[in-house]
Amino acid sequence: LILARRYTFSASHRLHSQQLDDAANRGVYGKCNNPFGHGHNYTLEVSVRGAVDQKTGLLLPTGSMDQLISEKITSGLAHRNLNDEVGYFQTHVPTTEELTNFVSARLREHWPAHWNAVLHRVRIWETKNNQFEEVF
Amino acid sequence: LILARRYTFSASHRLHSQQLDDAANRGVYGKCNNPFGHGHNYTLEVSVRGAVDQKTGLLLPTGSMDQLISEKITSGLAHRNLNDEVGYFQTHVPTTEELTNFVSARLREHWPAHWNAVLHRVRIWETKNNQFEEVF
Amino acid sequence: LILARRYTFSASHRLHSQQLDDAANRGVYGKCNNPFGHGHNYTLEVSVRGAVDQKTGLLLPTGSMDQLISEKITSGLAHRNLNDEVGYFQTHVPTTEELTNFVSARLREHWPAHWNAVLHRVRIWETKNNQFEEVF
Amino acid sequence: LILARRYTFSASHRLHSQQLDDAANRGVYGKCNNPFGHGHNYTLEVSVRGAVDQKTGLLLPTGSMDQLISEKITSGLAHRNLNDEVGYFQTHVPTTEELTNFVSARLREHWPAHWNAVLHRVRIWETKNNQFEEVF
Amino acid sequence: LILARRYTFSASHRLHSQQLDDAANRGVYGKCNNPFGHGHNYTLEVSVRGAVDQKTGLLLPTGSMDQLISEKITSGLAHRNLNDEVGYFQTHVPTTEELTNFVSARLREHWPAHWNAVLHRVRIWETKNNQFEEVF
Amino acid sequence: LILARRYTFSASHRLHSQQLDDAANRGVYGKCNNPFGHGHNYTLEVSVRGAVDQKTGLLLPTGSMDQLISEKITSGLAHRNLNDEVGYFQTHVPTTEELTNFVSARLREHWPAHWNAVLHRVRIWETKNNQFEEVF
Repeated sequence: LILARRYTFSASHRLHSQQLDDAANRGVYGKCNNPFGHGHNYTLEVSVRGAVDQKTGLLLPTGSMDQLISEKITSGLAHRNLNDEVGYFQTHVPTTEELTNFVSARLREHWPAHWNAVLHRVRIWETKNNQFEEVF
Repeated sequence: LILARRYTFSASHRLHSQQLDDAANRGVYGKCNNPFGHGHNYTLEVSVRGAVDQKTGLLLPTGSMDQLISEKITSGLAHRNLNDEVGYFQTHVPTTEELTNFVSARLREHWPAHWNAVLHRVRIWETKNNQFEEVF
Repeated sequence: LILARRYTFSASHRLHSQQLDDAANRGVYGKCNNPFGHGHNYTLEVSVRGAVDQKTGLLLPTGSMDQLISEKITSGLAHRNLNDEVGYFQTHVPTTEELTNFVSARLREHWPAHWNAVLHRVRIWETKNNQFEEVF
Repeated sequence: LILARRYTFSASHRLHSQQLDDAANRGVYGKCNNPFGHGHNYTLEVSVRGAVDQKTGLLLPTGSMDQLISEKITSGLAHRNLNDEVGYFQTHVPTTEELTNFVSARLREHWPAHWNAVLHRVRIWETKNNQFEEVF
Repeated sequence: LILARRYTFSASHRLHSQQLDDAANRGVYGKCNNPFGHGHNYTLEVSVRGAVDQKTGLLLPTGSMDQLISEKITSGLAHRNLNDEVGYFQTHVPTTEELTNFVSARLREHWPAHWNAVLHRVRIWETKNNQFEEVF
Repeated sequence: LILARRYTFSASHRLHSQQLDDAANRGVYGKCNNPFGHGHNYTLEVSVRGAVDQKTGLLLPTGSMDQLISEKITSGLAHRNLNDEVGYFQTHVPTTEELTNFVSARLREHWPAHWNAVLHRVRIWETKNNQFEEVF
């Protein structure tokens, strides 16, 4: 069985690569290269996979899952400027592709080994028509 | 090709396991253990997989699929108290995990063998941020 | 200016009027008269109206508004059986019409007189296609 | 008859009032006072009111309405930092209350007098649960 | 109290006015003047206003309201070509403005005088970003 | 990593198979066999799969992807009657199953070989409760 839960957070970013010159940055990112940045309401969906516990009828304690995601993921992203306040984006362009990589890596690092359910998929919507997904 | 159709129904439940004592039940289910129960608008999505019929351009007769799901699934769940009125939940906690198992088992049992399209996936949303899925 | 904020809660109810006999109850409420009850994910929207504070750019402190609504409204409804656990529904049928009346009356009673913004409208969705509204 | 059309844009902001000291700013705006800012996907709905033209069956030429809103409103807000790039927010806190005031004032200023339909309402969603509205 | 209920139907139309020549039709309606037509999933919302019946807790019998709207409105529009199959659009351009006028007039004509609740508002969405509304 | 982007277009169709007689057509397609046709707001989601470019943080240039889909897919479908204006549907019934096949085949044919990301999935919603999907 797979369980998916959704979380939301708002953040700002500027798309700019240190490996490209200014003209190339404007060419690749267009308005998203605007030096002052802009922002989004992101939606994060985390899916887990496992067997249902016969005694409780649950896949995992969802309260604990929510707490893990709040502590390790959303508390560090919500109401933040990704470029200036999240270390990973010192060296990675804060596209939603890289944001998905960042969240995936952190969740894999911090996922409790003793939980019945394993991490299955991370999805992030930047807008409702633009979505990124990593399947494990 | 995969076809997915969505159905909705409203029901009530109380999360309580006969294999746990009262304190453990309160600990595991929190407010959802409230003896009077509460309820949800559930959304059910059933997906089927198969080849498109060259003559009709259809995967299967969707009217028949809707009728099957109404007769075998939603008519027995809509406007019901899952604990008190659905036999399966005499012996299983009516979490949405178990509800997904229940719907999956019944659909597999009643799916017509002569249909071109096979059952592919069952998904149930308990709220729009909380979703359960079984892939066949 | 008008500000509207949305809140969600899940509850169960049974539609049954003590002023009608059993046959009339079944006739009026159909499946919703099922003695075991059923439930919904309700969405509540509370709107306020007033002038924007020049100093803060705000209509009212939304954190305080959220706290008021949690304390006076949703904490008493969420994960509840409306018939058995909310006093008002001892004497009123727990239709969403009456739920809207109940929420409206409580908000008017408890709305702080010193807030700049007055209560403007209460809306409740029982399902996404069925909505009730009181304008003040 | 009333016609309402929706538009979306993404922008960033920091809530900070020059009329309040730092402690008061943190108290009023909480995490939204974070000096690096954050952002949103805003949805703007503009409603107009008038009589339907018998010859065309239209209230107004919607292509012209879309062009006006793009030129006067969204092109100056999309992919922008409201504090640093929109003049109005040099002297007003970029709350969505003030953003609604800004959009309303600009639309009233630029609305063509010869159009059949008059401006009726401006609504902005900051998130899907938080909405601001000015009715004319 | 106000109650609003939503209904959906799919139909096709071609925007073309007999009072305009071909060039003017193309100028006013653009691609929507395509002689072969195109279509939409329309959403219709009907709102009623009245006092809640003390005995039943209801504003009106919603089953009867649904039946009225099915019989008088949606059964004649669903899976139809508005230009060719709905008499009103022999003489009116099938814009959603005129569709709103058509639905409003028919509902007013057929609304039962003995119902407690009066017709309050008709809204039609042509797409989720384009909405038309008549308030009574 | 997988990226999914959504596009919308409105079109009309009539479900009718040249390989079935009139009675069989009415039996299979019901109201959708209405000779005058009807229509939908279709939503198309195209997903691509690949590795994120280290230099840009992007999977592929999304502006180019949007242009490809506009030129090869949506410009030929939007505001069209599928039966009369899209060649493929001279010989295929314009069900959404076949529309998904058509879009999938055209995207595979025109997908630039030098792009980092390959086509992963095509999904089309005919209504929000009815969805078709091809995975590559």
